[in-house]
Amino acid sequence: MTIVLHELALSGDVRPSPYCWRVRYALAHKGLDYDVSTTSFAGIPKLADGKQKTVPVVEHKSNGQSRVVGDSWDISLDLEKNFPDTPSLFGDAQGRSYAFFIQNWSLAMLHKPLMKAIILDISDRVLPDEQENFRSVREKRLGVTLEQIAASPLEERIAAVRQALEPARAVLREQPYLCGEAPMHADYILAGQLHWPRNVTSARILESDDPIVPWFERMLSLYDRIAAESTKTWDGP
Amino acid sequence: MTIVLHELALSGDVRPSPYCWRVRYALAHKGLDYDVSTTSFAGIPKLADGKQKTVPVVEHKSNGQSRVVGDSWDISLDLEKNFPDTPSLFGDAQGRSYAFFIQNWSLAMLHKPLMKAIILDISDRVLPDEQENFRSVREKRLGVTLEQIAASPLEERIAAVRQALEPARAVLREQPYLCGEAPMHADYILAGQLHWPRNVTSARILESDDPIVPWFERMLSLYDRIAAESTKTWDGP
Repeated sequence: MTIVLHELALSGDVRPSPYCWRVRYALAHKGLDYDVSTTSFAGIPKLADGKQKTVPVVEHKSNGQSRVVGDSWDISLDLEKNFPDTPSLFGDAQGRSYAFFIQNWSLAMLHKPLMKAIILDISDRVLPDEQENFRSVREKRLGVTLEQIAASPLEERIAAVRQALEPARAVLREQPYLCGEAPMHADYILAGQLHWPRNVTSARILESDDPIVPWFERMLSLYDRIAAESTKTWDGP
Repeated sequence: MTIVLHELALSGDVRPSPYCWRVRYALAHKGLDYDVSTTSFAGIPKLADGKQKTVPVVEHKSNGQSRVVGDSWDISLDLEKNFPDTPSLFGDAQGRSYAFFIQNWSLAMLHKPLMKAIILDISDRVLPDEQENFRSVREKRLGVTLEQIAASPLEERIAAVRQALEPARAVLREQPYLCGEAPMHADYILAGQLHWPRNVTSARILESDDPIVPWFERMLSLYDRIAAESTKTWDGP
């Protein structure tokens, strides 16, 4: 059996997607081998079974047949269910609820401030003939033009990200990982979120003495440094 | 052995403290009997061993000796450790990390918006000769006068609370409790936070169709309705 991870790549082979990073970590946590197939935004509807609207998409290929799973959360549940003999991503029901909360917290509280902090950096890296569509979708979602976002001071936009991270900071001041003594899926979700700026902006999202920094360095060092070795523009977490 | 919970009471015997409610739930979850001893703000330094600055404080009395534990988080860990034959508050290490995250999220993201939404209601219920001190401590902490807070529209302050609750709302749309199929300590922490407005304000903090409402009603119905039977001004969650 072969596992293929379909992942977003921007200009310069940059891999920005927080959702794809979660799945990379999840596959590595379970010790599963996989191939990566990259796509631009416009290529997503054409990949795998042609029914997907977002990446990551995971394809399980076996005997000429292909099983396709989309949505990073569904992929994590699917891996947990179909590879029961590999290390668990959640530990138990509490760990699963924890990861689900972290995913929803990240989406509701972190995603938009991060988007505002790095939107022009991402926009610059979208393939030239996909930029217009990228812009119109984001401007609709955020309710302002990209230039209006960029007009507010970058420090203020970064300060909003730092403030949103406070719950994680408070936990990581007391324990090495969100999940305790070892990383599990809740850690992968937050780390994925921070790989997003790491891969597209040169702005420093975290202050150097932030307790999140040593945790992020630990996350970068995991699994043969898969994340650390990715293309990146951000010098340090 | 006797367990005494020292709890804050305001005028009209109102019990507002989110931290005390967490401990009430934790004691009930473990099926432990306890007596409640109430205090005003000014009485806290005089209770138990005279070293406490906040409530809840739990005293374990046995053979004329008394062991005193303060801080709601430390109390939950202490109960978990010292009553190993009672139902666990966390389930396992993942559940403990989850509850710790929820506590830090609640403190960092929910506490201040809630405070701003209900500050005058609480202030009105503080004992007359403690009001000046209550006011000066809160104004220092919030950086504005209580009147300045009250000058901004109540709907805006309540909207900020609703927005801050989004991660919990997203989880509770999919499962009956934050912790899954049954309540554990992460649920008690958030429920305690919402008992705070419930006990002091007549303003409606949650919209009636909010997915948090049926969860909160489940939390109110737990353990012989200890929370539902408390004095309250808030008609419904």
